[in-house]
Amino acid sequence: MVTAPQGDASARPHVGDPVFDLHVGGKLQTVSTVALTGPEELSLAYTPGVARVCEAIAADPSLTQHFTWVPNTVAVVTDGTAVLGLGDIGPAAAMPVMEGKAVLFKQFGGVDAVPICLDTTDTEEIIETVARLAPSFGGINLEDISAPRCFEIEARLKERLSIPVFHDDQHGTAVVALAALTNALRLTGRDPATTRVVVQGAGAAGVAVARILLEAGIRDLAVLDRKGVLNTERSDLTAVKEALARDTADHFGRRGSLADVMDGADVYIGVSGGTVPEEVVASMADDAIIFGLANPTPEVHPDVAHRHARVVATGRSDFPNQINNVLAFPGIFRGAFDVHATAITEGMKLAAAAALAELVGDRLSEEYVVPSPFDPRVGPAVSAAVAEAARRDGVARR
Amino acid sequence: MVTAPQGDASARPHVGDPVFDLHVGGKLQTVSTVALTGPEELSLAYTPGVARVCEAIAADPSLTQHFTWVPNTVAVVTDGTAVLGLGDIGPAAAMPVMEGKAVLFKQFGGVDAVPICLDTTDTEEIIETVARLAPSFGGINLEDISAPRCFEIEARLKERLSIPVFHDDQHGTAVVALAALTNALRLTGRDPATTRVVVQGAGAAGVAVARILLEAGIRDLAVLDRKGVLNTERSDLTAVKEALARDTADHFGRRGSLADVMDGADVYIGVSGGTVPEEVVASMADDAIIFGLANPTPEVHPDVAHRHARVVATGRSDFPNQINNVLAFPGIFRGAFDVHATAITEGMKLAAAAALAELVGDRLSEEYVVPSPFDPRVGPAVSAAVAEAARRDGVARR
Repeated sequence: MVTAPQGDASARPHVGDPVFDLHVGGKLQTVSTVALTGPEELSLAYTPGVARVCEAIAADPSLTQHFTWVPNTVAVVTDGTAVLGLGDIGPAAAMPVMEGKAVLFKQFGGVDAVPICLDTTDTEEIIETVARLAPSFGGINLEDISAPRCFEIEARLKERLSIPVFHDDQHGTAVVALAALTNALRLTGRDPATTRVVVQGAGAAGVAVARILLEAGIRDLAVLDRKGVLNTERSDLTAVKEALARDTADHFGRRGSLADVMDGADVYIGVSGGTVPEEVVASMADDAIIFGLANPTPEVHPDVAHRHARVVATGRSDFPNQINNVLAFPGIFRGAFDVHATAITEGMKLAAAAALAELVGDRLSEEYVVPSPFDPRVGPAVSAAVAEAARRDGVARR
Repeated sequence: MVTAPQGDASARPHVGDPVFDLHVGGKLQTVSTVALTGPEELSLAYTPGVARVCEAIAADPSLTQHFTWVPNTVAVVTDGTAVLGLGDIGPAAAMPVMEGKAVLFKQFGGVDAVPICLDTTDTEEIIETVARLAPSFGGINLEDISAPRCFEIEARLKERLSIPVFHDDQHGTAVVALAALTNALRLTGRDPATTRVVVQGAGAAGVAVARILLEAGIRDLAVLDRKGVLNTERSDLTAVKEALARDTADHFGRRGSLADVMDGADVYIGVSGGTVPEEVVASMADDAIIFGLANPTPEVHPDVAHRHARVVATGRSDFPNQINNVLAFPGIFRGAFDVHATAITEGMKLAAAAALAELVGDRLSEEYVVPSPFDPRVGPAVSAAVAEAARRDGVARR
């Protein structure tokens, strides 16, 4: 078999740097699942045999689920406008992250995944392009598309397609944050209905975290963007932020700055970047819960957080309680694909969060409110819970 | 690792049928090329390490060729309008063929390949969609898109993109047919400049076969569509057919029906389907060469052909001299990708055909004018010749 060359090392920079050495040739490949050792197999896998499979699907499109890779394959779609902490670096530079996501989908969820980096940032063009690709995939994972366009893109595609559409920067973060918070509340003896929560950041993650907390029974919630608390006294809010304001701060009259709402707050969740001044952290309630999720620099460094809080989580793997989306998206798609779901519903996301939280069980402690990404129970537990929720919500087709 | 289930056999039809059993779950998967056994590898392959690779590519986009899978990956793109002999069956039903193509790309060319079945047949929408996907791929293989739209789609995308764009139904067929014809002419002691050729069919394959024969020095060439010989006396021709008429039949005043031009012809190449009446076949010159390439029913059945011709080829694997595109497209893309070519030029196609023809060497006989798809020399020989031609033509970037 002819194989691809490994590139011209003399022209390649960063030789000897472990990150770059690992990335030579990329991180992904396509591989046949059938052996093609001779003309017989070729005539079954390709012409003339394959024509019978095409005819069967043409007559009954539901047979796609049995005889193609489509129902197990997700497109990881970006326009490169919000890549990690790097921002708008464009589709070509985004590819290593998308390949990495594809690798994680397969390793942790058994889901085949194709990275798609689009050469447009126009909302309509992105929606059109993904809709035209849709017959090729069992689901769409939107990735690293900046707010606020990501909200409309996800909503319009969910409306238009009958396969799951899921923006992981929104909902993966939200699911794992909810799982960790559920356990932190359990540990600190709190009731969601009376817990005061501050979410700093009203981009993709902040909006989705806020929404899932409301679905999970949190009532006293204030969400902040760069200008302060989202409430309807403000006249500068997008439609998404305005709706969130109505459902959050308005209920308790929360307004002002971060310092205003942190005073006596039980929970801080940072999805904005930046740094919270220590005196603001210090004003929180006793047994505070602090999740500083910006990478690589949490909004509250664990050393600072531990001086004032009981449960501390970050997005980093070198501290306890890593809130890592990889705990969610592989199992969510695995569960959705196992029942050939047409969508990922709120119920499925809540079920994923609950399944993650339950895995901690009796080992719950300040240092352990969320499972490790490498815990082999995670994938099966999340996918089983999501599959069951899909059936409950009436979106399962098997 | 969580794996995909194999489907519900009780709901799946055609159980026990070898073609369908082979197709359960599809024929393709994505696989990581890096091991992710723990947090250390994760931090190199994904956050935070991957950010450095993204930054490097953002600063120098040429680094895509070293650190991503893009330069080795082709998109196999169809709209499902001309699938095998089935015609317009749509994108979902086309998927098994596209998966098969992807498997062949990898097995015979070491090229990673992603099947993309588009939910549109509009020329502009197809061009736009593929252009927006382009950062994700090192090349585009258009497949099973009906004539005449395929000509414009390929031409416009070649103009717009700086990666290879190649419609295999056109050029793969043409390259292999030329290779076989080159050897058949050699065997029968003919000079291309004085050989009379008839090409029946003016769709994707017919137009491309005719064009490559002209590039290879054939002069006396008549091309026919359903209504007869393409010549400029006709007023019903598309632009593509009109141009071809000017470059072919007009030169020798060829006109009329198949019977008219087959009388005394040296070579018949069928890419149209249907059946040529035996008396028409019988009117060809001595030592005739007959390539009936329609699948599964050649335009001239070998039994009939052998009564009147010296060299007979078909598209079928159960007869000698199978003219199979798999002899061309994997090696062509392998060669193009090895030198990071920006296009597949005429020179590269001619080089591929010559390399294929040369592999037959001294073993040339009536039953052996083209190598077998399973001859391990094919991939390396074609890719080396194509890479060299790319450099010669100034489209290589390494």
